[in-house]
Amino acid sequence: MAFTLDVTSMTEPAVPSGVRDDDWAALAERFRAAHQAVSVIAATGLYGYRELERQSAERARVTAFAAEVAGRYDDIVVLGIGGSSLGAIALRSALLPAAWNARTTTERSGRPRLHVLDNVDPRTITGVLSVVALPRTLFVVISKSGGTVETLAQYLVVRDRLAREGLDAARHLAFVTDPVTGALRAIAVRDGIPAFAVPPNVGGRFSVLSPVGTLPAALCGIDIEALCTGAMVMRDATMGDDLMRNAAGLFATLQWRAHAQAGQGQHVMMPYSDALRDLAPWFVQLWAESLGKVDADGMHVGPTPIASVGATDQHSQVQLFMEGPADKTVTFLRVEASADDVEIPRLEAGEKALAFLGGHTLGELLDVECRATARALARAGRPSMTMTVGASDAWHVGGLMMWLMQATTLAGALYRVNPLDQPGVELGKRLANRELGHPDFAASVLTSDLASDLASGAEDRPVPTRRIRVG
Amino acid sequence: MAFTLDVTSMTEPAVPSGVRDDDWAALAERFRAAHQAVSVIAATGLYGYRELERQSAERARVTAFAAEVAGRYDDIVVLGIGGSSLGAIALRSALLPAAWNARTTTERSGRPRLHVLDNVDPRTITGVLSVVALPRTLFVVISKSGGTVETLAQYLVVRDRLAREGLDAARHLAFVTDPVTGALRAIAVRDGIPAFAVPPNVGGRFSVLSPVGTLPAALCGIDIEALCTGAMVMRDATMGDDLMRNAAGLFATLQWRAHAQAGQGQHVMMPYSDALRDLAPWFVQLWAESLGKVDADGMHVGPTPIASVGATDQHSQVQLFMEGPADKTVTFLRVEASADDVEIPRLEAGEKALAFLGGHTLGELLDVECRATARALARAGRPSMTMTVGASDAWHVGGLMMWLMQATTLAGALYRVNPLDQPGVELGKRLANRELGHPDFAASVLTSDLASDLASGAEDRPVPTRRIRVG
Repeated sequence: MAFTLDVTSMTEPAVPSGVRDDDWAALAERFRAAHQAVSVIAATGLYGYRELERQSAERARVTAFAAEVAGRYDDIVVLGIGGSSLGAIALRSALLPAAWNARTTTERSGRPRLHVLDNVDPRTITGVLSVVALPRTLFVVISKSGGTVETLAQYLVVRDRLAREGLDAARHLAFVTDPVTGALRAIAVRDGIPAFAVPPNVGGRFSVLSPVGTLPAALCGIDIEALCTGAMVMRDATMGDDLMRNAAGLFATLQWRAHAQAGQGQHVMMPYSDALRDLAPWFVQLWAESLGKVDADGMHVGPTPIASVGATDQHSQVQLFMEGPADKTVTFLRVEASADDVEIPRLEAGEKALAFLGGHTLGELLDVECRATARALARAGRPSMTMTVGASDAWHVGGLMMWLMQATTLAGALYRVNPLDQPGVELGKRLANRELGHPDFAASVLTSDLASDLASGAEDRPVPTRRIRVG
Repeated sequence: MAFTLDVTSMTEPAVPSGVRDDDWAALAERFRAAHQAVSVIAATGLYGYRELERQSAERARVTAFAAEVAGRYDDIVVLGIGGSSLGAIALRSALLPAAWNARTTTERSGRPRLHVLDNVDPRTITGVLSVVALPRTLFVVISKSGGTVETLAQYLVVRDRLAREGLDAARHLAFVTDPVTGALRAIAVRDGIPAFAVPPNVGGRFSVLSPVGTLPAALCGIDIEALCTGAMVMRDATMGDDLMRNAAGLFATLQWRAHAQAGQGQHVMMPYSDALRDLAPWFVQLWAESLGKVDADGMHVGPTPIASVGATDQHSQVQLFMEGPADKTVTFLRVEASADDVEIPRLEAGEKALAFLGGHTLGELLDVECRATARALARAGRPSMTMTVGASDAWHVGGLMMWLMQATTLAGALYRVNPLDQPGVELGKRLANRELGHPDFAASVLTSDLASDLASGAEDRPVPTRRIRVG
């Protein structure tokens, strides 16, 4: 049970643009300052994602609820978007067997399928409602604020269906939301719907280890204590201010340094593992939404995270990573040994293109390709690092997620932004709410120039339209 | 049945960095030159993806085969990677009902599920083999060259399983490969396995309208004639050299201009539609692998395509797009009207956060969010364009794919690269093949400095390793 982060190919001489021996002292100092800034904020209690011991009571409620309803449902349908869905999707891919949702009830031994409705497309909710039997379905509605318009719209559709089939809402709904405020909390209290709390000091994109991620996971039989134990081990190993002993600090500092000093601001996350595949989009939200904003000097900053998967994307994106502009770093995620590896049979001895494969395993092939891609990138002067985990089990997945959350917090200090807010999405939300007739719109407090313009109608001035029509 | 491309927000005054009125003449001229370069190459027959009439005989064979085997299989399993899988995945999402693979045989009316094994992870192939009944399964092995190591490894595993269950390979395998050469073709001839041809002048990432995409699609009941008809309509509308009348030329030219003249080299593809969601990763391969390479001046060039989906990624990436560095363009894909829209019920009148949603539809909500996001981006000075299609049916999906393939060809000329090759992936392939013991490795022709270094063992020189271990 271990994690190893190898950053050799982020350094010189492996890669010419990499860190030189005499750069390390300054980087260690820069990291110490960032660590200090994070510590000051942490002391105010804002980094709730780390406080897993304090959250053990709510976690026990999740476990007890999952035990209580075991066998009652064939399908769990999560209604949530962004930070309320990406964690559950990543946990499903990592910790439920592949093709889980295509298995029959018997093949799943009575454990439910997990569907995540992370968009308001009518086609998708209709599709999922057509394959579940409502009397055997639990809908988990997740919105930290209780006011996410996409999720509330889905909730209304589902609640109406339940009512029409004469089903008890309290038996077919569960909420994950703020402990006190918001529409979902009010409805839960009114109607006796089971509700689990997202701690107020845990932001959406940092919430996977709260009931936001653990409730859907536990309902499908995932070991959430192992998940959180792995996370706590990683947390404890990434609290210090010594750069060379802090894997999260090293990741954050090397990414920041690649961006600031070598123009490498596109950060590719490339698991060589189908199990870890959906950790990449989860990381994309974490890194993009936390760091892409206005910094302390008023500059627009932030790296662009890119989700990729190996070996698949060797046939899609690696050409660009190898020969395109030298503006990227690649982080490989490797799993040491696969429990259920598959040997490639010795067939087709007459076919040169096939014969040499016999006797190898698929896991070996995947791993050889990972190392070959890393070496080819280094030979082309393109930096990469490799995080190797012992297995893709709950303990290691929890650890990986904590590693990246810790790194994001530290990167916020390096980039000199607040990693916990997302002011850039407000304007779009207001424009949509106004068009939909939200009663608060007119009264909403206008805090920015954009919002003032908006209120005055300035954004509505007509501009000449340019369109092409085909067909 | 129509497509409308609105580029207003790629222009000034909608967006300050956009095209100014007096820039258009030079852009039109630059496009005419690129168009001329493409025409010269097209005359040599290299752009086979456009020659859909010539490919009608093979398409008829695909249709006849699908009709012949109708009802025989419950599961179609594609073994393919990159250009041999992304098209099938995009067609499945777009043209099979949502949650298709979670439906029972009866709910699917006898039509098969579609699984795409686009990676060599042993867990995934084991998972899929555990949910299909081999006697009711057809494996479609897709490799243009017939030598893709990942796909051949999967083929060997599957072939062995079929043999062990005493099943006839010719009834449970179908190949899509080169018409004459390669290991798969040789095996097909030897064993009487149905085999369909990828025309030699159709590259992998341009092959979705060949049997690479049409065979899996037709087997699941998708109308491949409608797909190709939509594509031909779009092709005919995007052959001319007048920038303002060529939607593919306009897309390519505005993206290239944004990159070259405004530093906007990250090109986000953001469908507001779950059906069109997987067009984005398909486009990512097309744009990245075609354009990310060394140009005529020896410079490393190419935009970074980024896959996104609305409204979902408003809660993930839009913060970065709004407030991060001003280095991105966003292309929205919108579907005009959803056939099976869902009304949001008027419930919870007492809850302000919910009451205003009642009476709207989910489709309306999705569309309001798309337009609000585009307007918010424009107000923040961030460029975007919007492609609107009448419906997400086969005809329009074929048209969208042709639009982007035509645009890629034209962008190759604008970026002054060969959009049809992928030299940057060779080194990684060689390193992997050497480690796996491929007999050709020693004898392979060495054409680059990298390859020479490799042959001499220079890439193997040790570098100091830097690692952190946790746990």
